[in-house]
Amino acid sequence: MTPTMYERIGHQGRRPSPYSWRIRYAFAHKGVEPEYRHVRFADVETIRALSGQHFVPIVTDGDTVVCDSWNIACYLEDLFPQAPSLFPDGGRGVARLVNHWADQTLGTAVRRLIAADFIHCLDLGDRAYYRSSREAAFGCSLEEYCTDRPRWLAEFVAITAPLEGTLAEQPYVAGVAPGYADYIVFSMFQYARLGCPDEFLVDGTALRRWRDTLVDMFDRLGDRYPAYPA
Amino acid sequence: MTPTMYERIGHQGRRPSPYSWRIRYAFAHKGVEPEYRHVRFADVETIRALSGQHFVPIVTDGDTVVCDSWNIACYLEDLFPQAPSLFPDGGRGVARLVNHWADQTLGTAVRRLIAADFIHCLDLGDRAYYRSSREAAFGCSLEEYCTDRPRWLAEFVAITAPLEGTLAEQPYVAGVAPGYADYIVFSMFQYARLGCPDEFLVDGTALRRWRDTLVDMFDRLGDRYPAYPA
Repeated sequence: MTPTMYERIGHQGRRPSPYSWRIRYAFAHKGVEPEYRHVRFADVETIRALSGQHFVPIVTDGDTVVCDSWNIACYLEDLFPQAPSLFPDGGRGVARLVNHWADQTLGTAVRRLIAADFIHCLDLGDRAYYRSSREAAFGCSLEEYCTDRPRWLAEFVAITAPLEGTLAEQPYVAGVAPGYADYIVFSMFQYARLGCPDEFLVDGTALRRWRDTLVDMFDRLGDRYPAYPA
Repeated sequence: MTPTMYERIGHQGRRPSPYSWRIRYAFAHKGVEPEYRHVRFADVETIRALSGQHFVPIVTDGDTVVCDSWNIACYLEDLFPQAPSLFPDGGRGVARLVNHWADQTLGTAVRRLIAADFIHCLDLGDRAYYRSSREAAFGCSLEEYCTDRPRWLAEFVAITAPLEGTLAEQPYVAGVAPGYADYIVFSMFQYARLGCPDEFLVDGTALRRWRDTLVDMFDRLGDRYPAYPA
């Protein structure tokens, strides 16, 4: 039986959610194509009825409903034990720290760069919800949140320095082969790449080389959907 | 043959270096007690003659000289394959990212809190060197570097949030059992704990519980040497 993945869909087929990107890559790593069901920001009640909470992605597999991207990845790892491991060199415990770091530290740094642009990736009907919920959380407008670009770019460089150091020494975050730790981190760069017209990764860096490699994996999975709206 | 570890020794037997702490724990994890040789900040030329660079720790094993704490850990892992693995669940690749993160992001956050106090852990003869080299790097006095304590404390809380999240879910950074990833991260908290009279970890948090557990490991290895000078 093929699992079903509920994911956020944005403006004209765009895929804005970093959490869905890491699960999309996890499925591809396992060689499994899920059935996709699309939800919008406005579908909060549908998602809550399904899973008891309001975040996507959600994966359903028969009667099983799994939410939270980390739980989904671990579920897929156990569901498809014969397929290549998402933790090719082990290290699921350490990958959990990378997951929290990506969501909190890296994700915050990216959001400071893209929040004002990102809204244009969303379905027209979702933009008012996004703006009001985010502006309430930030305590300022999306535009004010991102105003001081030089400051947030310097912060982004500092936050990503450990990645640059690592990827200058080994091809993937997980080591010699890619794993879920790569997809976690990549998903935040995909969020930046598809959620903003600007390129934040400097050509010639290890981080840029790695990100471009990830975009190209699995038949150019990172470019399968529309890019930032022109 | 027992390896020899060259490490920084501070004021009246103190052990201020985070990089030596992680290797001290790595040796203990392997059940091996190295021979210790003590160096001071002022012994730069001796260290350079031995290893071609000026950082400690350095481990020598017969004619082999290994510098850089990551290289030393990997060397010990391979030298003692029968002893418990430093990567008990695998994940050496992902641990490399944790290493870079600890040294750059976490280490910088800790240094902002302790640099002005830390100098009192050093041998009297090393303090002028420490002050002049650090103040040249920081572009201000040690005291100015640490002045805005509320700001740097907020930064420390934000930087350590991914650790709190992880350790609220699993007992160790490496997962169910401690590994080198724990010793890397712990070494920075040991640097804070021994390098400053203030406690930065809040009682009742997962991070505090984990740090106190690490202090107690290996016959209270974390308390084997003198604490912050009264």
